[in-house]
Amino acid sequence: MDSGYIYATYLIEGASDLEKKARGIAVGLTVGTWTGLPREKQEQMAPYLGKVEEVVRLEPADDGSPRGRITIGYPMRNLTADLPAVLTTVFGKLSMDGKIKLIDLQLPEEFLSRFPGPRFGIEGIRERLGVHDRPLLMSIFKQCIGLPLDELETEYQKQIEGGVDLVKDDEIFFRDDLAPVGERVRAFERRNRVWEEQTGKKVLYAVNLTGPVTQLPDRAKRLVEAGASCLLLNVAPYGWDVLHRLAEDPDIPVPIMAHPAFTGAIYASPDHGLSAALLLGKLLRWAGADIVLYPSPYGSVAMPRKEALKVAQHLRENNGVHRPAFPAPSAGIHPGLVPVLYRDFGRDAIVNAGGGIHGHPDGSTQGGRAFVDAIEAVVSGVTLEEKAETSAALRKAIDAWGVVKA
Amino acid sequence: MDSGYIYATYLIEGASDLEKKARGIAVGLTVGTWTGLPREKQEQMAPYLGKVEEVVRLEPADDGSPRGRITIGYPMRNLTADLPAVLTTVFGKLSMDGKIKLIDLQLPEEFLSRFPGPRFGIEGIRERLGVHDRPLLMSIFKQCIGLPLDELETEYQKQIEGGVDLVKDDEIFFRDDLAPVGERVRAFERRNRVWEEQTGKKVLYAVNLTGPVTQLPDRAKRLVEAGASCLLLNVAPYGWDVLHRLAEDPDIPVPIMAHPAFTGAIYASPDHGLSAALLLGKLLRWAGADIVLYPSPYGSVAMPRKEALKVAQHLRENNGVHRPAFPAPSAGIHPGLVPVLYRDFGRDAIVNAGGGIHGHPDGSTQGGRAFVDAIEAVVSGVTLEEKAETSAALRKAIDAWGVVKA
Repeated sequence: MDSGYIYATYLIEGASDLEKKARGIAVGLTVGTWTGLPREKQEQMAPYLGKVEEVVRLEPADDGSPRGRITIGYPMRNLTADLPAVLTTVFGKLSMDGKIKLIDLQLPEEFLSRFPGPRFGIEGIRERLGVHDRPLLMSIFKQCIGLPLDELETEYQKQIEGGVDLVKDDEIFFRDDLAPVGERVRAFERRNRVWEEQTGKKVLYAVNLTGPVTQLPDRAKRLVEAGASCLLLNVAPYGWDVLHRLAEDPDIPVPIMAHPAFTGAIYASPDHGLSAALLLGKLLRWAGADIVLYPSPYGSVAMPRKEALKVAQHLRENNGVHRPAFPAPSAGIHPGLVPVLYRDFGRDAIVNAGGGIHGHPDGSTQGGRAFVDAIEAVVSGVTLEEKAETSAALRKAIDAWGVVKA
Repeated sequence: MDSGYIYATYLIEGASDLEKKARGIAVGLTVGTWTGLPREKQEQMAPYLGKVEEVVRLEPADDGSPRGRITIGYPMRNLTADLPAVLTTVFGKLSMDGKIKLIDLQLPEEFLSRFPGPRFGIEGIRERLGVHDRPLLMSIFKQCIGLPLDELETEYQKQIEGGVDLVKDDEIFFRDDLAPVGERVRAFERRNRVWEEQTGKKVLYAVNLTGPVTQLPDRAKRLVEAGASCLLLNVAPYGWDVLHRLAEDPDIPVPIMAHPAFTGAIYASPDHGLSAALLLGKLLRWAGADIVLYPSPYGSVAMPRKEALKVAQHLRENNGVHRPAFPAPSAGIHPGLVPVLYRDFGRDAIVNAGGGIHGHPDGSTQGGRAFVDAIEAVVSGVTLEEKAETSAALRKAIDAWGVVKA
């Protein structure tokens, strides 16, 4: 592959002449026309012309419709280094052109290095927390909307007393009149400081960053000034590029957690949109997410295991430029799933639970402790049943939800 | 329906108990939990609780899988009046929850009125152009990338001499080192002024607005200062909310044309994402697009006719709050299609052509004239063949592409 090109790989169904289709894309999405141009014009335009890198015929669809996988190279010089430019070029018009799915993008290092990537990444977050030898544990507020600050603060305290490393806002928390975001940050971060003084344990609070997209950087800075330790962003609803701008801003020196809200509208179809691995694994890391939440393969809102593993792979593999980001495969997680999570996602992942913490028979704090003990068990090679002999919290969690064998 | 609620309608496949599914959504995406709450807590949370408005069982899918349509009401008080908040709430997590498609949203007027809608709309653009009695005609640059300013200016002049009302940049025009955006605006708007002095005819140039999303308002203002008459925005790649912020900004007093780049990734699947009518017809109008480009039902990049008509309907119908916006059903348009376009989309639409103008046997200017004459014909009830007796440009266009009977 030529380092001056961005390569996009598509699955296509219904194109009888794949080579012709591929040439049409390579020309149509770059210089517009080619074969009719006079030679000197072709010489002028050649540096801007796309090229067909690969055309692979696949098994026909069930209805006999032809299928294929094609890879097109787009000259880097056609593009600015941001996701709107990349997505408009490689999947703007093309997204509307019948059954076609963008399954991968490969950027040359020179281009990739102009994306910020995670400011902290896995190691940076581990350093902030002082935790290096196990998966992290995150708790999701059961409820945010409609609760006054003092009730939320009580819920917050219960969660951190369970031993979690991170607590995140509910992503649907927009109207927060009863507990304004600045007050939340001040109250919860004060709880974090007191907890650290008492126990030595650090906690990050991911506060939901909301508002007009053009004001998000300023709002983020005000939250940082108020003491925010982590930001939560619904990236797809706000747009990929604002994550990029937040991540590259030196005045926003806190980790950014990307929520996958709305991304199912883009990745879930087998015939349209983008693959989950590209969308959640590559694009969000390039744009600067330190932590990416996405559906685990285990819950009711589930992602196929192979795809979920590929997201984690893209977030963590060496891409030559960026720090690795934390995968947080979420939904349906209870303590009895920790062995399977550890087998599938390893040490550098975040165990993220809502119902699996708050639904513990003895409440949120014991719910957190059950997870802490489950994580300690898997990391030290002890079964959950053995661990439960000395952990009442884990014992009750297992009784409630069972254990899924790794 | 209760005016304090936002109503979202979904198509769902695979849920055997639709009522239960609907209740789960109404609770899960608002207050989180309900049935287990003590009575006084329920009283406190009731104003924030979603409600099931309608559950309709549909014919099962081909494989026997149950299908249904459900409408959920979300309390307006849970939300801020912006698309990120609306989409995160009604289709955040839910977008990832199996086969589910968001097909409609209905906002109460009080909420809707907090979205800017089109600043100019159909009448405002007609006033700017001084054209009130026919569909407008727009020309797309055949090519932008890699061409120096003087060549683009020559192409621009050819297009306006054909009699078009608007000319738009190619939406993939990001790296414009050879013809920087400010210079383009100055050069093309000067051409517009000279043309108006010579002929009395006004033209709008839709310049591609690009750059970091947080800088788009400032860039737009600089382009307006340089004389820009219209802005082109790839809304989905940049994010819905930035369109909202541009449209509501009093210092950006020019029409905004929304390009549908990337929207196929969201609307094209029958089982996932959003309907085209909602995405392109409602959301883009609410956020402030004066003109919405989208696939016509006629070309190779086609949208089913019924859906394309519904987009136009949503853009133009009385929604109680906003000005109507122009539909520009695009792709595959040649002069011989004007009768069908006029039958389907009427007077308040934009006839938008690229290949159908530049591919005219006698070049872009004659290509424009063929369209001008075709539009004049359909509006005055004359057939294209009759009109072609006195229009050589139209005659040649018909010989090249034929006529599609309305």
